[in-house]
Formats: sequence, structure tokens, C-alpha cells
Amino acid sequence: MNFTILTEVLLNNLLIAQKALSTRTPAPYLQGIKLEVYSKEIIMVTSNSDISIKLSIKDESLEVLEAGEVLIPGKFFVDIIRKLSGEKTKLTTSENNILRIEAGNSDVTLNLLNVEDYPELDFVMNDTPIKLDSKVMRAIIRQTTFATSAIENRPILTGVNIRVEGEKLVAIATDSFRLSQKMIDIPKNFENMNVVIPGKSLDELSKILELNLDEILVHLDHKSILFEYGNVLFQSRLLDGNFPETSRLIPVEFPIIIKFKKDDLFVAIDRASLLSQKDGSTSIVKLHLRNDNLVEITSNSPEIGKVTEEVYPIEKAIGIPIKIAFSSRYFMDALKTFNSDEVYVKFTGEIRPFVIEGDDDLGLIQLILPVRTE
Amino acid sequence: MNFTILTEVLLNNLLIAQKALSTRTPAPYLQGIKLEVYSKEIIMVTSNSDISIKLSIKDESLEVLEAGEVLIPGKFFVDIIRKLSGEKTKLTTSENNILRIEAGNSDVTLNLLNVEDYPELDFVMNDTPIKLDSKVMRAIIRQTTFATSAIENRPILTGVNIRVEGEKLVAIATDSFRLSQKMIDIPKNFENMNVVIPGKSLDELSKILELNLDEILVHLDHKSILFEYGNVLFQSRLLDGNFPETSRLIPVEFPIIIKFKKDDLFVAIDRASLLSQKDGSTSIVKLHLRNDNLVEITSNSPEIGKVTEEVYPIEKAIGIPIKIAFSSRYFMDALKTFNSDEVYVKFTGEIRPFVIEGDDDLGLIQLILPVRTE
Repeated sequence: MNFTILTEVLLNNLLIAQKALSTRTPAPYLQGIKLEVYSKEIIMVTSNSDISIKLSIKDESLEVLEAGEVLIPGKFFVDIIRKLSGEKTKLTTSENNILRIEAGNSDVTLNLLNVEDYPELDFVMNDTPIKLDSKVMRAIIRQTTFATSAIENRPILTGVNIRVEGEKLVAIATDSFRLSQKMIDIPKNFENMNVVIPGKSLDELSKILELNLDEILVHLDHKSILFEYGNVLFQSRLLDGNFPETSRLIPVEFPIIIKFKKDDLFVAIDRASLLSQKDGSTSIVKLHLRNDNLVEITSNSPEIGKVTEEVYPIEKAIGIPIKIAFSSRYFMDALKTFNSDEVYVKFTGEIRPFVIEGDDDLGLIQLILPVRTE
Repeated sequence: MNFTILTEVLLNNLLIAQKALSTRTPAPYLQGIKLEVYSKEIIMVTSNSDISIKLSIKDESLEVLEAGEVLIPGKFFVDIIRKLSGEKTKLTTSENNILRIEAGNSDVTLNLLNVEDYPELDFVMNDTPIKLDSKVMRAIIRQTTFATSAIENRPILTGVNIRVEGEKLVAIATDSFRLSQKMIDIPKNFENMNVVIPGKSLDELSKILELNLDEILVHLDHKSILFEYGNVLFQSRLLDGNFPETSRLIPVEFPIIIKFKKDDLFVAIDRASLLSQKDGSTSIVKLHLRNDNLVEITSNSPEIGKVTEEVYPIEKAIGIPIKIAFSSRYFMDALKTFNSDEVYVKFTGEIRPFVIEGDDDLGLIQLILPVRTE
């Protein structure tokens, strides 16, 4: 193998590929980046237990003198290329399975891994991928993955449920104390699907989507999901098991609706939460819609003190006065997902789940379970 | 106690005072911020086992209705004031030792600590403090504290030795593998002094010096050191014991001198260190001045690979070829302290300490012990 390429091009692709690198693994070959070098193209492959990435580099700076296939220790390779100052980088292999990297005044040799050990990976594409605006895909991820469960005792809840139902694509995440649901329209000629993707996989995908290409193709099947984004194929494993049926959890009628400026509500809850935080546990604050239409956000910690925040709803609230208690973190997490400057908080009762929605966030519902206090 | 003040003024002073707050302490009162409120001034006091801070607030926004003295739980107080959105903050106390904080739409009560528990602190000032440019003081700290020992087995080496000797003020730090020394001129009418200040105290002082006032007064005595910076008094405890006599460690004649562009040398060592890093231990690189005046920086890890970096000295090096090995981190730490774009690396031999100096860093010497390799 012998080729030269712009250092920057090599680096930018490595920074994508490394998102699927295993750092600790019983299989050392998964710590490697596989390079397949052809006359006018390099294929780069990485894989860990959750995701696999395959990307194609066809840059005009690429000059291949000799094709070949190698497996390079991933972390060192990325660290070195990241620090090179030469404009171009030359990569050559010698017979005793050594890679030589030359750039500027640097001359580096790396012991290669055995490329024959690398497993054959199947990247499953289909003929009719769903085309999405990549900004929409990022929004779906940002608005749902935070609500997945961080605890592994119900593994299915560590994932985001993606469903295709008629002309809708629905993403749902819940840790059983809160639920995020984002629904978008898609053309109607797709088969109904119901899969669960690890939240961590989606978070990694989201970082790659920062490249700002316009669209992403979602190759979705009952047993696999693969995202095609420019020159990058990103495949995630799916979680086994049935995602809970959540549709009946979301109330449909709300006798009490309060409209807030999002930022006013956020800072009031943030301040109120200060005194009720104890050793990293969830801090509980109370919301009280008073008869005079003023909303009080309060918290009380007998040992430390008490906070009372007054928030003025944008317009006269609908419904009777209500007092309800909830996790301040869950509420703030949910508020952060909205693009809307104004949000509706909708209640059905003091011990029933409540919902947040916003006019500029069509299809987005954030649901939170209240906490019982005496 | 009852007063009102601009929230921003209160916060800016709290952010200074909190640098001496204890977070974990067997003495709960040290987690408190003491406020002494007079008709036209507030005195704020904090203290932990290393440093004590006393500052005076005389702001024209201050309106005192009732004087008094309180001890406020520090962390909560700072967190709350930091998040308040009201332009002005009103602080009042009620009979049952409760503080009320009102600002904007926020109304907070905090249980106070018992101000009688707070110790009487002695802030020791003298009539003839040494006046320094605060930028010079920051430079001294930046150029020395990093070389203090992080290990507590020789406590005296966790501190910076400050000496007044005739018309010189000298700051020295060493962890016994490297040594930093910065010497500046001062007027000659000061008594000779020799004290050792905990490196951590100086790091905290350095953060306060970011206020960008012009000068700092150093009240130095055999048993105490106090820095006076605008409205802030910053006192540190001193370390007991004798700092090692380091002057004879620094060679005075250097048969080999190489002049480098600092950045060229830095990136070469940085890259060479990549492959020799193992599990957080110190990475060793080698420098080789060749007969043809080229310098090679290399590292070699049999399992991983090998890096060779070529660096061109600015001018023909003085002296014979040399090969020397050292900790890459120590060398890079030392290089970072220089303002000079060009540095001299001065050697006396392959197993003798070597020295780095720069024309634009008068009085600064960085010394590093080489590592023996076979």
C-alpha cells in the first residue's frame, strides 16, 4: 500500500470513523481502523459493539501508487494525524506489517494489526430509503435521546423507539418517569416499521450530522437500520424486545392550560431547584397556579431554606388553580428541546402526567410524571 | 441587617470571596461567608485551611437601612446570587436567624449559620509592602507553580519558595525532577525574607488577579504573607520547614547551546510523545543534536511504533553533538512558560540537568533533569 492525500482530508474522515472505534474490547481488531485502498478511492471501516461506520474517500488530492488493505491501531493513528503539520501525508506499508506515515518533518512508523482478523461487516441498504432533512434528523435525536433510561435494568428503555406508521415517522423515548415524542410527516409509500435504536448510537450519529449536508437517507428494515449521509454509512445495532405501548399514556384532554414565555419558566425552575438539590438526587419543585393567575414556583428544604419564584403567564390561564410537584431537571430537560419561545403546559390533574408543547414545535410532545408530596 | 445593592456588584465580590470557601471541612462555619454591614461599607470574609480573604465593598449602589453581622452558607449564597435576574438585590435578616434575599421575581430565605462561631482572623499588614505590577505577579505564578510537587511526601515541595535578597525577589519551585526559577528586581530597602507559599494558594490568587488592576502590594513577613489587590486582602498560610538550597543545582557553564523557534520545538516534542504514552505515566522522548546541525526528536515503543521529528535550530548550535532523553511533559510544561518566540536550550552533558532560557524572559530559568536510557 502506498498513497498520498491532503492531511486535512484524511483527518476529517478519521474523525468521523473514530466514532465507531472500540476503546476497550476483548477483540483487539475492533480497536483498528480498516483501510481498503483502491486506485481512486479509499474505504475506511470501523466498528464496535453498537455501531459500524464505512466511509468512502474520493478526493482529488488522493494519489495511489499501490493498492492494498491494512488494519491500523485506531487511537494512535487518529492522534498522530491530528497533530501532523505537513499539508500532505504519505502512507506506505512495508513487508513486516509496518505502516510508515510521512508528513512535513515527521516520520512515524506504526505496527499494524492483522487485517485478516477483521470481520466481514454487512452494511444493509435497501432500495427505498426514507429521505430526511438532516436538520430534522438532528432535531429528532436532540428532542428524544435525553429521555432514554440511563439504567440498564430495562434495556429496551435505553433506546429510542422509531416507528413508521402510514405517513408518519414517530420517535419515542421514555425512562418511565417522562416521555418524549416527536412525530414528522413522510411520504406514504413506506412499509410500517417498529424498531428500537440505542440512544447512544443516535447521539454519535448526531455528532456526525454536524457536517451540515442537506439530507440523510434512512435505510430502515425490521432487523437493521443504516443512515447514509454523504460519503458515510452509519449502521447501528437494534435493541431486542418490545418497546412499551405509550400512546395511551399521553392524555388527550387538558382542563388546565398555562402559556408561558419559555425562558421565564426555565430560569424560575432553575433558581427554585437550587435549594432542593441534595447529593445529586433529583430536586423537586412545586408549581402553583393561583386564583389571581400568577404562578408560583417554590422549593423548600427545612435545613437550608426556601425559594419562591413568581412567573407571569402570557395570558389568562385556562382552568382551575392547581398545585403540582415535579423533578426540576426533567422539566428543564424538556424545555430545552423546544425551539418555540412560548410553551403550553397542559395538566389533567395534580397527580396525573402533564404535557409541554409549543406552536413552533409541531409534532413534539414532552410528558412528565408529577411527584407526590404531602 | 437590611441593605440593598446592585446584584452584579454583590456577585462580583462573592466570586472573589468564594475562592477561600471550604467545601468539605470539619468546621461548618468555614463553609460560611461572613458579612459585616456598616452604614457605608460591607466587609466580606471567607477562610479555609490555606487562604483567607477579606474584601471591602463601598459601592454607590449600596443602601444600608440596618447594620449587622451574619454568617451565610457560602455555596448556596453564591449559587443563588449568580442566578438572580433582578438588577438590585435586597438582603434582610429576621429574628430567628434567617436571611431573606429579594431580587426581581425571586424571594429566597436561607437559614443562617451562627456568626458567633466564626473565628477572629488576623490579616497581617505591614507598613512597607512590596509594590509589584499585577501582570508581573501573575507571570511569576504561571511560571513557577506548575513545577511544584503534586505529591505530599515532601510537603515543602508543594510550595513556591519566595525570597527577598537585596534588590532581588526570587520565586523557586521544584518537584526534584525539574525546577523553575523567576527573579525580578525590586527596590533595595526591604529586609531579606525566605518563605514558602502553597502552590495552590498562588493559583487561587492568580485567578483573582484577572481583575486587571495595575498593582498588587505584597505584605511579606517571616511568618506571614498577605496580598493587597484593590479592595481585596488575600492571605495565605506558609509552609513550615526549609526549602532545599537550589542555587548550586543550576549549572553556570554550558558547552552546548541550541537556539530553537519555541513553537517548532514544542510541536515536535508533542508529536514524538504520542507513541510513548502509556497509561498516564511520563512519556520519554530523546533529543539528538547531529553533526550536520539538525536536531532529531524521537520516541520508540517496540509494541506500537516509532516517531522521528526533525527540527532545524535557528542558527548553528554551539558545541559537540549530544543525545539526551527527558520527560516530554516536563519539557512542554517548561516551554509554555516563555513569552519569547525563540528559546535557548543549554546542556552541560548527557546525564546532567539542562536549562531553557529566552531573551524576552529575563530572570526566568527552567531546569529539567534528563532520564537515563540505555
